[in-house]
Amino acid sequence: MKKITLILSGGLDSSTLAFWLKYKYNSELVCLTFDYGQKQVKELDSATKITQVLKAEHHIIDLSFIKKFLKLANSSLVNDNITVPHGEYTKQNMQSTVVPNRNSLMLSIAWTIACINNSDALAYGAHSGDHYLYPDTRPEYFTALNTALKLGVKDVGTTELDLIAPFINFSKSQIILEGSKLNVPFELTWTCYEGGTIHCGECGACISRKKSFIEGHVEDKTIYKV
Amino acid sequence: MKKITLILSGGLDSSTLAFWLKYKYNSELVCLTFDYGQKQVKELDSATKITQVLKAEHHIIDLSFIKKFLKLANSSLVNDNITVPHGEYTKQNMQSTVVPNRNSLMLSIAWTIACINNSDALAYGAHSGDHYLYPDTRPEYFTALNTALKLGVKDVGTTELDLIAPFINFSKSQIILEGSKLNVPFELTWTCYEGGTIHCGECGACISRKKSFIEGHVEDKTIYKV
Repeated sequence: MKKITLILSGGLDSSTLAFWLKYKYNSELVCLTFDYGQKQVKELDSATKITQVLKAEHHIIDLSFIKKFLKLANSSLVNDNITVPHGEYTKQNMQSTVVPNRNSLMLSIAWTIACINNSDALAYGAHSGDHYLYPDTRPEYFTALNTALKLGVKDVGTTELDLIAPFINFSKSQIILEGSKLNVPFELTWTCYEGGTIHCGECGACISRKKSFIEGHVEDKTIYKV
Repeated sequence: MKKITLILSGGLDSSTLAFWLKYKYNSELVCLTFDYGQKQVKELDSATKITQVLKAEHHIIDLSFIKKFLKLANSSLVNDNITVPHGEYTKQNMQSTVVPNRNSLMLSIAWTIACINNSDALAYGAHSGDHYLYPDTRPEYFTALNTALKLGVKDVGTTELDLIAPFINFSKSQIILEGSKLNVPFELTWTCYEGGTIHCGECGACISRKKSFIEGHVEDKTIYKV
């Protein structure tokens, strides 16, 4: 694959995916990072740093138009009136972190851009550790969306584009293990759901990050507040 | 259905759809109009006028973020270097008017908004007269996208939302006939692909509009330049 467009949040999974795609296909990467009003706005800086290391094209896509709607969503990641949950990364605890339709929104925008820039694939970093909670990371969703997006541009002269999610059956610790082989600078990535400047260490996302480094037997250089 | 979100371009098909939904379900309508850099920016005014007649909620969604990408697409509707085709509404002639992935882009954004505003359905005005040219108006695309979008928000606490396209098997003249029964103010709608202030009467879209009024045996009050 000569050119791959990917969604890069600046988190651990999509950052590792960028390195993995670069290594596996030696492709030109076009990285898209979405500013949708998330509290963890710090991840945008992380995404920028990762693309600088990779010397990859990077666009921060400002979804200002949707922010006023998302502020009203029942989601602690975007609604200022709902607190980000602390503690274990379990379904009950993490339910409020779902941003409705987030991946369909980002992937359909990215698909438009990937059609225009003649990419061979559009990639995103879905993984198995999120399937229990976020439906838009599950294999059946991924397959259905790929089918729909391809039908939507059938025979209109764009390149044969495919949605890919190489880590969809990986656990987070497997991703970390892959990343460590590729020397991914994990310390540049951002996971915390809180709006701080260092990882809080207490929110569900931080707990899951910590745990995955331990399970992957990879040194965790992240600085956590707690 | 208590509340329906719909994509309203300001054209004849989606405007009729708005009236049709209002009449059939007596639903609260939330109309979304997309400013994606189209030359026929006049349609935004038409959409506003239609919502004023219907006394419906209306949002013009400014997709500024995507305009710089779409300007590079091989599409005469958004690329200033490609001329809008004149003459018959045939595949060969109209091919350049395809905006890649347009409906997936708009529908996925609209789906996010429909999830948050607790709509019962998301509607768009696809019809059979466009199937030969625009793949994102075809039944197989519509069905696949509905499946994907539903899977993407499965079990996350949003209402049971459905994508609907009531006119998907109607011809444009059938839509005009339906609209005339509902007293749709067709003269307020906008079809022309050129960037003018009155309908040019010569582009493929205008030719198709003229022809559909004649076929539907409905008086055409549109003022055409030619």
